[in-house]
Amino acid sequence: MSLAEQVLEGNIRAAARLMRDIDDGRSEAIDELKQLYPHTGAAYIIGITGPPGAGKSTLVDQLTASFRGRGKKVGVVAIDPTSPFTGGAILGDRIRMNRHSCDEGVFIRSLATRGALGGLSRSTSDVALVMDAMGMDIIIIETVGVGQDEVDIVKEAHTTCVVMVPGLGDDIQAIKAGILEIGDIFVVNKADRDGADRTARELNIMLEMRHSTEGQWHPQVMKTEATRGSGIDELTDEIMAHRTFFLSSGTIGAFLRERGRRHFMSILRDTLVKKAVAFMATNDALDTIVTAMNEHRIDPYSAVEEIVSKMMPV
Amino acid sequence: MSLAEQVLEGNIRAAARLMRDIDDGRSEAIDELKQLYPHTGAAYIIGITGPPGAGKSTLVDQLTASFRGRGKKVGVVAIDPTSPFTGGAILGDRIRMNRHSCDEGVFIRSLATRGALGGLSRSTSDVALVMDAMGMDIIIIETVGVGQDEVDIVKEAHTTCVVMVPGLGDDIQAIKAGILEIGDIFVVNKADRDGADRTARELNIMLEMRHSTEGQWHPQVMKTEATRGSGIDELTDEIMAHRTFFLSSGTIGAFLRERGRRHFMSILRDTLVKKAVAFMATNDALDTIVTAMNEHRIDPYSAVEEIVSKMMPV
Repeated sequence: MSLAEQVLEGNIRAAARLMRDIDDGRSEAIDELKQLYPHTGAAYIIGITGPPGAGKSTLVDQLTASFRGRGKKVGVVAIDPTSPFTGGAILGDRIRMNRHSCDEGVFIRSLATRGALGGLSRSTSDVALVMDAMGMDIIIIETVGVGQDEVDIVKEAHTTCVVMVPGLGDDIQAIKAGILEIGDIFVVNKADRDGADRTARELNIMLEMRHSTEGQWHPQVMKTEATRGSGIDELTDEIMAHRTFFLSSGTIGAFLRERGRRHFMSILRDTLVKKAVAFMATNDALDTIVTAMNEHRIDPYSAVEEIVSKMMPV
Repeated sequence: MSLAEQVLEGNIRAAARLMRDIDDGRSEAIDELKQLYPHTGAAYIIGITGPPGAGKSTLVDQLTASFRGRGKKVGVVAIDPTSPFTGGAILGDRIRMNRHSCDEGVFIRSLATRGALGGLSRSTSDVALVMDAMGMDIIIIETVGVGQDEVDIVKEAHTTCVVMVPGLGDDIQAIKAGILEIGDIFVVNKADRDGADRTARELNIMLEMRHSTEGQWHPQVMKTEATRGSGIDELTDEIMAHRTFFLSSGTIGAFLRERGRRHFMSILRDTLVKKAVAFMATNDALDTIVTAMNEHRIDPYSAVEEIVSKMMPV
């Protein structure tokens, strides 16, 4: 029986193995994903993003418990970027959500590496696809919101929650302006801290200044204390409210088309590059080209044209 | 006369126009870059990176003045990422270095957008290539160090300076561990602030803990107050010391090969994707595929294989 068939039968170990294959960038994983694809599309994906130190992990833990309490199966994909600047992987593998470890309705996967199949966002969407096929009702993708990679990941989600925290200084405050565009819900976590009300108020003012049209979703600013569990139920309600809006307002069609296009183009890009690498490997073409470039005998643009015209004579 | 020929003759307006074409992702720019390529390779590239608020712009301004004082022509590429999280472009176009605006030995270019030719790192290296062809001796690339994109940009530089600032909180301190790997020189800017000595001391301890082998470069921690200009001359000296080491130690060969390989692969990837998009445009294939995907009649992996086998029948 293929890994995919085992996943569809609910085999947790098979799912874990397939996700590891995806994370490692093993090409065998693609055949399994092909088999799973027809069985996906039912899960609702929630993106949780925000700066380091905003308490996202704890919040995701609480949301998981909240959705479990409502009878939903929950998958969690936590991104620990390996980028030297974001620090995620440097802090070491966090022990995630031990209290859910005996619950078969929760499946948690930490992605720390960039799989060779594609970038981090490819691995993330592939892992989410496996969780979808496993029958998870809710998939939470948690990412440290700092770069384009992370923004791409957030685009996978039906509902995106941006988590802020009081008192991260002026620079971070300035950054807020940009994230207004990607958040469906804003969360001021660690709401017991000094300045929480001010942060919430400022966010609200910025949200109100946006040009908003009739029939559009109006993001709310929610306050939580994830460590104590307060505000979590209200946040879960708000996520479900956005879900209802999203599914009924007609935006879902455009969203799915755009997401499908992005998936296809991402796989296409990786496949073409892999083909080219294999093509060049047969005669050490890459080495020869780089040498010629460094000796200024050829420019990289002409070198590319030459290779591409050999690969695609038409 | 082509833009490239005008650039080689020292025409500033032509250079500015070519850089705009690059930033806009216009494919005509490629023909110009091809012509310029044989005339490049002499410039020394310095990368300046670090978190928002570290005072990088001011530092770059001072370094520019310092290198000018030593008779060098200086090009500056400043990256203002449009990523919603980094905030660069949101802060608006900074008025950069007015005091150099009448100096023909200084050429400054701000890159705010992601050109369609490729990602931000492609635009950056193409713009640096134009400055190189213009005869700039020193090219300073300034980037807000927060994501993979920015790390890729830093890889362009012969010498990378990581700029830190005292008192950015625990999260940022944790992040430091990862940037040790990419910095050739560390700068504690705003050295008049409380905690500057501690930040410098901590950096030094972390650097000493690294396993260092004989004949390797040992990064120094420099203190500057860019707004007052203090420490700048010493920093310039240290950059030149690293340059001497870099050019004499034999690492330059491996560096150039790796950089060449990366340039080539990046151009190759973009070219292949562009070919594929053109191929699919002839019969609305992309629309058809996305529709079939969303109706679960095809999975994206098989759809990609089908397109690629049509494009490359061999």
